[in-house]
Amino acid sequence: MIQAAVMGYGVVGSGVVEVLTEHKDSIAKRAKEEINIKYILDIRDFPGSPFADKFTKDFETILNDDEVKVVAEVMGGVNPAYDFTKRCLLSGKSVVTSNKELVATKGAELLEIAKKNNVNYLFEASVGGGIPIIRPISQCLAANEVIEIAGILNGTTNFILTKMICDNMAFEDALKLAQDNGYAERNPAADIEGLDAGRKIAILASLAYGKHIYPDFVHTQGITKITLEDVAYASSWGGVIKLIGQVKRLDDGKLDIAVEPMLIEKSSQLANVDDVFNGILVRGDATGDVVFYGKGAGKLPTASAVVADIIDCVKHLKARKYLYWADGNADCVKPYEETSYSVYVRAETNDKKFAAEKISELFVNARTIVRANAPENEIAFVTDDMLVSRQEKAVDMLNKAGIEVKSKIRIADF
Amino acid sequence: MIQAAVMGYGVVGSGVVEVLTEHKDSIAKRAKEEINIKYILDIRDFPGSPFADKFTKDFETILNDDEVKVVAEVMGGVNPAYDFTKRCLLSGKSVVTSNKELVATKGAELLEIAKKNNVNYLFEASVGGGIPIIRPISQCLAANEVIEIAGILNGTTNFILTKMICDNMAFEDALKLAQDNGYAERNPAADIEGLDAGRKIAILASLAYGKHIYPDFVHTQGITKITLEDVAYASSWGGVIKLIGQVKRLDDGKLDIAVEPMLIEKSSQLANVDDVFNGILVRGDATGDVVFYGKGAGKLPTASAVVADIIDCVKHLKARKYLYWADGNADCVKPYEETSYSVYVRAETNDKKFAAEKISELFVNARTIVRANAPENEIAFVTDDMLVSRQEKAVDMLNKAGIEVKSKIRIADF
Repeated sequence: MIQAAVMGYGVVGSGVVEVLTEHKDSIAKRAKEEINIKYILDIRDFPGSPFADKFTKDFETILNDDEVKVVAEVMGGVNPAYDFTKRCLLSGKSVVTSNKELVATKGAELLEIAKKNNVNYLFEASVGGGIPIIRPISQCLAANEVIEIAGILNGTTNFILTKMICDNMAFEDALKLAQDNGYAERNPAADIEGLDAGRKIAILASLAYGKHIYPDFVHTQGITKITLEDVAYASSWGGVIKLIGQVKRLDDGKLDIAVEPMLIEKSSQLANVDDVFNGILVRGDATGDVVFYGKGAGKLPTASAVVADIIDCVKHLKARKYLYWADGNADCVKPYEETSYSVYVRAETNDKKFAAEKISELFVNARTIVRANAPENEIAFVTDDMLVSRQEKAVDMLNKAGIEVKSKIRIADF
Repeated sequence: MIQAAVMGYGVVGSGVVEVLTEHKDSIAKRAKEEINIKYILDIRDFPGSPFADKFTKDFETILNDDEVKVVAEVMGGVNPAYDFTKRCLLSGKSVVTSNKELVATKGAELLEIAKKNNVNYLFEASVGGGIPIIRPISQCLAANEVIEIAGILNGTTNFILTKMICDNMAFEDALKLAQDNGYAERNPAADIEGLDAGRKIAILASLAYGKHIYPDFVHTQGITKITLEDVAYASSWGGVIKLIGQVKRLDDGKLDIAVEPMLIEKSSQLANVDDVFNGILVRGDATGDVVFYGKGAGKLPTASAVVADIIDCVKHLKARKYLYWADGNADCVKPYEETSYSVYVRAETNDKKFAAEKISELFVNARTIVRANAPENEIAFVTDDMLVSRQEKAVDMLNKAGIEVKSKIRIADF
């Protein structure tokens, strides 16, 4: 029998305890060992819980118990999870986690400590909730060079955009509905500003390219400025607006990595990923496009990914899984202004003829697009690939010429 | 350095050699060992091949070389692949394969031999080509009970149906086009009669439920009887017709497993899986629905899955992967006539009022559906769940009453 501990008894933590308890027999069969939860760490009290005898408020109890071989860190946040994880790994315990913030900010260091101490640090649950994505990228795609990863990585923003697209709901109303449904926090910044998706694409990029890409390196833009006008133009262009985390390797070896709203064509497999679902496209040089789809969050999906990692640790107590990346620095990443893509722009002008001339002068192959019931002074167009720095200069020039730019949104290339 | 052999230098085999050669360095890094192809087995000659010095026509050469630790069997067919695989496993070599026919018919026996000899028998490439599906089901979903698996598992038939649905092409023309494009064999029976999909769902079912489900146990029906009329009715009903392999566990513990054309709703994630692509939905009790999408066949996708298995074998030369199922028998499977589902029926009658009465008498909650430009004597309807035996009886009665049933197609429940 293997002794395990669960740190954090929130949504995911209670799910982990539930899955480990309810599937005890089938898990024992797969892990070839029975797994017993010896401790649950939480600062709160849970009187009347069937697991009352397992609760502790003292991390040292877990740390100093040599019987505990595997620890699930499902507390979230960097502190004290970082300190706890480090000390567990140093003392020879494997750690599994759903904590994307910690993996994204301290992954390289923790993976190095795990390697030196011959234990595992696994984090399948940190990206895509219950969707298997870390393992497929690291194992099944071992025989591929990963050309590109693009994903809808945040369920809350995808729910909001879906409501805007399908129900013509304004951003604020859709956000309110997401909060009422429990999909969005009272303080929704980490979701709607793209930070959560930024952490996740940073983890996937680190894994795929072998160097730690810190969230600071990722150009991150949320969905707060998306309007129903943009949604309508996207539709008439033949697509939808989604918040996409994307990374691809450029010809010079640097990574183009960003989280931002993008227009994607309706025929793309990611266009039909709606509501709180996540979808992740991995483009390998041999496999071609592989897409993974499912619930990216939620108690049981995330918990089941944590438990799968616990099982994997138990099966590999004496062997390390190959899950590792070296430290990285900002030189790995192409500065955002030097990246290049096609763009959609919406602007207001009182002189459409003059605006059209200016636009065709400043943008590469600009083609006008239309929408029903557009006000007389509205103009919108899409371009071919342009350097971001050139896009920004062109927007500046339009504004200075009295053509007020309201939106500029990337057009996806997958 | 690890010595490997490739048996069969056809499409997949040459892809395996290509991937192992071109990605030699990155594979060595992941496998923590360099992998060298020592032999390629094929009865044909390949003069001028850069691998000329590796070819052998004699299986014994590979078998008797103790240096060879991993063998990729990519010959296809049961014989002599079965004999070769068995003898490799018995002599302590791990075997990886893309051979779905062999895994589906001899999997339990070969897995047992592998277990006894402490080697691995891996077959990620046997289902879904380059889509990782065997590993996710066996590992990532370890913490789940698999409630249901449903998939578009055959690219050839999906290409044909896509042409019928999107381009209104008749079955024979679409088949011809598939043959001209190299997607379908000159003798396309294994694809269009559903046998290939049947083997694949048998493998997935065996893996998910732990007992060998032989292809003989799987009710298998192809797409040869699908007409453009049915495609039109599916569309007006709000869906598409796809060839689906499905397995689910019934309340009595038996499996409902079948390959047959099904009407699926347009909102289903599988409805948008078009052309030669595969899509596989795995419904876990904790994860909910997870969908895997990608190219289900082709040289490099399949080869990259084979190579991923080779890498996994090299990393686990002294440890066994948990990939195993026991032998099974037909008692595991619910007889098809005793399964139950909703159905779409199309018939011809000269007396629509009489037909409507008969239909509502014989079928459960039959609702008429219509299509544009239907001939005067055509009638079509969908029902609620009905036992298959009752459906068949009802069809008989309609035919006897002069209402000639032209099509009866299952309606998917996912």
